[in-house]
Amino acid sequence: MSKNDSQKIMVDPWGNSLIEDYSRLIREFGMQEFDLSIMPNPNAQMRRGVIFGGQDLKIIAEAIKTKKKFYCLTGIMPSAEKIHLGTESIIQQVKYYQDNGAETYVLIADVEAQATRGISLTEGKRRALNFYIPAYIALGLDPKKTKFYFQSENKKVSNLAAICSQKITENEFRAIYGSVHPSKVMSAFTQMGDILHPQLKNTMPGIIPIGIDQAPHIRMSRDIARRLKNEYGFFLPSASYNKYTSSLDGSFKMSKNEQTGKIEIPEKDRKELEKKLKKTLTGGRATMNEQKQKGGEVEKCVAYEYCKNHFIKEDKILKQMRDECVSGKNLCGECKQKYLIKHAFEFYDEFDKKFENAKKIVGKIKFEE
Amino acid sequence: MSKNDSQKIMVDPWGNSLIEDYSRLIREFGMQEFDLSIMPNPNAQMRRGVIFGGQDLKIIAEAIKTKKKFYCLTGIMPSAEKIHLGTESIIQQVKYYQDNGAETYVLIADVEAQATRGISLTEGKRRALNFYIPAYIALGLDPKKTKFYFQSENKKVSNLAAICSQKITENEFRAIYGSVHPSKVMSAFTQMGDILHPQLKNTMPGIIPIGIDQAPHIRMSRDIARRLKNEYGFFLPSASYNKYTSSLDGSFKMSKNEQTGKIEIPEKDRKELEKKLKKTLTGGRATMNEQKQKGGEVEKCVAYEYCKNHFIKEDKILKQMRDECVSGKNLCGECKQKYLIKHAFEFYDEFDKKFENAKKIVGKIKFEE
Repeated sequence: MSKNDSQKIMVDPWGNSLIEDYSRLIREFGMQEFDLSIMPNPNAQMRRGVIFGGQDLKIIAEAIKTKKKFYCLTGIMPSAEKIHLGTESIIQQVKYYQDNGAETYVLIADVEAQATRGISLTEGKRRALNFYIPAYIALGLDPKKTKFYFQSENKKVSNLAAICSQKITENEFRAIYGSVHPSKVMSAFTQMGDILHPQLKNTMPGIIPIGIDQAPHIRMSRDIARRLKNEYGFFLPSASYNKYTSSLDGSFKMSKNEQTGKIEIPEKDRKELEKKLKKTLTGGRATMNEQKQKGGEVEKCVAYEYCKNHFIKEDKILKQMRDECVSGKNLCGECKQKYLIKHAFEFYDEFDKKFENAKKIVGKIKFEE
Repeated sequence: MSKNDSQKIMVDPWGNSLIEDYSRLIREFGMQEFDLSIMPNPNAQMRRGVIFGGQDLKIIAEAIKTKKKFYCLTGIMPSAEKIHLGTESIIQQVKYYQDNGAETYVLIADVEAQATRGISLTEGKRRALNFYIPAYIALGLDPKKTKFYFQSENKKVSNLAAICSQKITENEFRAIYGSVHPSKVMSAFTQMGDILHPQLKNTMPGIIPIGIDQAPHIRMSRDIARRLKNEYGFFLPSASYNKYTSSLDGSFKMSKNEQTGKIEIPEKDRKELEKKLKKTLTGGRATMNEQKQKGGEVEKCVAYEYCKNHFIKEDKILKQMRDECVSGKNLCGECKQKYLIKHAFEFYDEFDKKFENAKKIVGKIKFEE
């Protein structure tokens, strides 16, 4: 889902990627731990623990196995003509569900971009067509199987939003989102319309891959779906939760709102990219000798995290990177050249090529209204 | 504007039509007394004091006199296939502004009817096409000069609603509407989109004729227009306020939510209509003698109110009705036959004829999207 103010309430209060923190999140938010064993053909991020939790993922796994209809939905806020690595993780999830049969929806939150950031609908549309949609395609979505739509053009969504708003009290809204600012209400219920509208024609399970900061939307959409069950037969939306992507120095969550510490897509200037990658925090020891003896602390290494979560697709190569670290074979500088920079460059070369191709077909996309 | 929950907060807390009460309303709501002397070609309702207050009516009067662009907007909630006399008053106002050059907008609040009353969009549309739109035309609106639209189809409105919601805080909303229930927020900002959207293409003054229960919408729309002035150049919407139409026995405000005490449009069964009209409260004295000596108390007479506000168009005839009452010439039963029933029947005969004609042209209307 597109980011909104709710982020401010929830933003990363528990550090970034320590395992204890995610367990606590799972407990406190009433979600379930991600169970790899139930998912058919799990993708790299699932196998590698980037997906740490979920809600009602069984029904999605079941739909995949029995080839029943289900949908997957994600959102784009067309605020800048680039995305960061954290967003790439979400797209990988969407791609997984699409490859496994999901009806796929990608909404462009142009109404929200206009309301919250003063980006005109025309400009929002331009950015979506020029960058976001081709980028999402370049990162793996199949344009033939993806229903893109603009919030500003999809009346089904705004009509459903009004219905959803009947089902939540002022106090419930405050409990979920922290405040009842009118703009937050408008935005949240528009997202309820987004999340539930694929079920208007056919009720079916749906999966929303998100970062934990978007969890309030899932909570409210499930409350609403439950209360509209008699009338509309809605399934409660399922969710999967991605771990945050760390900033370069590992000190905070990568975010488009931070000016530094992030790696973006695209990174046209490869020299700049290389400089940034060289700055990533590692799990290196204080001295070369200590490193050779004890090996690196791979769990602390942001370079490894980026490779694991984004740049290295083959498990075999990732394992090799890890082994060479913990055995003390590589020093951090060598390792970065051999793995991080090499595979990042491959990733960006492939992206640039696919992006140019995707731009050529954007004109043919028919948007949902 | 279409009725919404705000009515519940504001509903008729000051009785119905006592002059003191309206003065108090004007004071407490920061509105201005209606100034007949500034309005060009005032219509019967203006001349007869049915319009008791307004906001910024000078700028509208000025636009009429100088033939500058301005607009007028009203709303229909397609909840039942009939309207009551109070609504007819509003339509007379809209007709006045239309006849005097206003760009005229009539919105059908089908999204709200669905959200608050479970009337499907399809059914809302059917009712609008079958009844409301031809009825509004039969009551005087010129279909060639009126822009009808459905909330469910007008994306300009919902997009502007999101922008408006940025400009009001939670506490301001609560102060204006009494609570911040999410559905009230969604509905109110949709109405903000309705009220302001005609200015998106050309900024211009706009007049919203309403009953006092809709005053919160005007207040908020003016706050928002002020805060969006730099960006959009909006004029603050003007408003004119109608007195309530009394129920048959004069005990409360006529409302579509009340099951009894109302006269509706249409009234197909003329015998039933006659029965109801005969029941209207009058200002008759306790005895025939007293009536002949002192005359009737015309200010208390609901039959006179209906004639004044709705059924008798000619001032001369209305004056005659009044004179014959206060001079004691007529007893109430005679008076009702001679004036109320006669002119009501003429009104309904004319309505029925015009309604049938209007139905024939509804198919040709092009709705705003």
